Amino acid sequence: MTTDAKQSSRDRLLEAAAALAYTEGVGVGVEALCKAAGVSKRSMYQLFESKDELLAASLKERAPGYAAQLLPGADDGRSPRARVLHVFEQVEAQAAAPGYRGCPFLAVQVELKDPDHPASRAAGRAKGELLAFFRGEAVRGGADDPELLARQLVLIFDGISARAGVRADSPAGLLMPTVTTLLDAAGLR
Amino acid sequence: MTTDAKQSSRDRLLEAAAALAYTEGVGVGVEALCKAAGVSKRSMYQLFESKDELLAASLKERAPGYAAQLLPGADDGRSPRARVLHVFEQVEAQAAAPGYRGCPFLAVQVELKDPDHPASRAAGRAKGELLAFFRGEAVRGGADDPELLARQLVLIFDGISARAGVRADSPAGLLMPTVTTLLDAAGLR
Repeated sequence: MTTDAKQSSRDRLLEAAAALAYTEGVGVGVEALCKAAGVSKRSMYQLFESKDELLAASLKERAPGYAAQLLPGADDGRSPRARVLHVFEQVEAQAAAPGYRGCPFLAVQVELKDPDHPASRAAGRAKGELLAFFRGEAVRGGADDPELLARQLVLIFDGISARAGVRADSPAGLLMPTVTTLLDAAGLR
Repeated sequence: MTTDAKQSSRDRLLEAAAALAYTEGVGVGVEALCKAAGVSKRSMYQLFESKDELLAASLKERAPGYAAQLLPGADDGRSPRARVLHVFEQVEAQAAAPGYRGCPFLAVQVELKDPDHPASRAAGRAKGELLAFFRGEAVRGGADDPELLARQLVLIFDGISARAGVRADSPAGLLMPTVTTLLDAAGLR
């Protein structure tokens, strides 16, 4: 196997793991993952120690792209308030897609029920970056209690991910009014 | 098998399904469920058409007890605001327990990824009752927009269930300030 082919098997496995964990859950079998990736089990175990490690790697790989979809560009000249609202506008847009099942990192954490699982830890790091983004904007925008506001915003983010992801509710007429109320109460500019 | 013994096998299966789905997830196998309940697979399939039906029945059975733990007694003489806060005080207390993994109904919905699954429907009905409780209190307490406030409160409820259930955050210093801000903004008495 050439280095290029190895790289490609690895990428296909990472992609299959991200896609199937999102649509079917973390219980998806090794056989199904390998089949979707077009990779033998033997090759998979040469590339990853275990399914758990593959899952963790796929979440880690997915994190930067996910952040890029959600977060505004650095120094886009907008106010902290507008930059926070940008994130929730993206969530509202994403939730309208038929295949939307909420935040992929949250789902993995809920399914694994084990904060020490390597995939839970990878998911937790991705969500920690979202919290850090909100905290930074809260500080810059003069929020009364930046840490509280950041936690509130991730609370709303995960709440709508869960509710809209299971089709129990939708962001329409709910998400933006709720976020706005919290930003107003915190005095975010 | 006598009628009493049949009743008891059924109860033990319902209890095992609720307990194992909560600690291990909906992917828990039929063998593990039967072993935990001390019931043969043959008996299980005489009582329930499928594991899916057993899971749905266990959630349905669990719903009234869960509501009793969370909701205040009918006509306890307190204000709608105090009655809403009561629910979140219970959540905060529950989340402090070591085995807390969030709302069992939300977890099942997130894991199944299928709103039409019988267990997702059973879970959705239980959460619908929580929404109805909040809506009723919002109307009685003169909220500006009772439907919006009720949706916001379930959003927070599920958000903290998810965050605290995966140990990503805890209700302390977050849940009550957030709920209070939303109740204030809605003008709930």
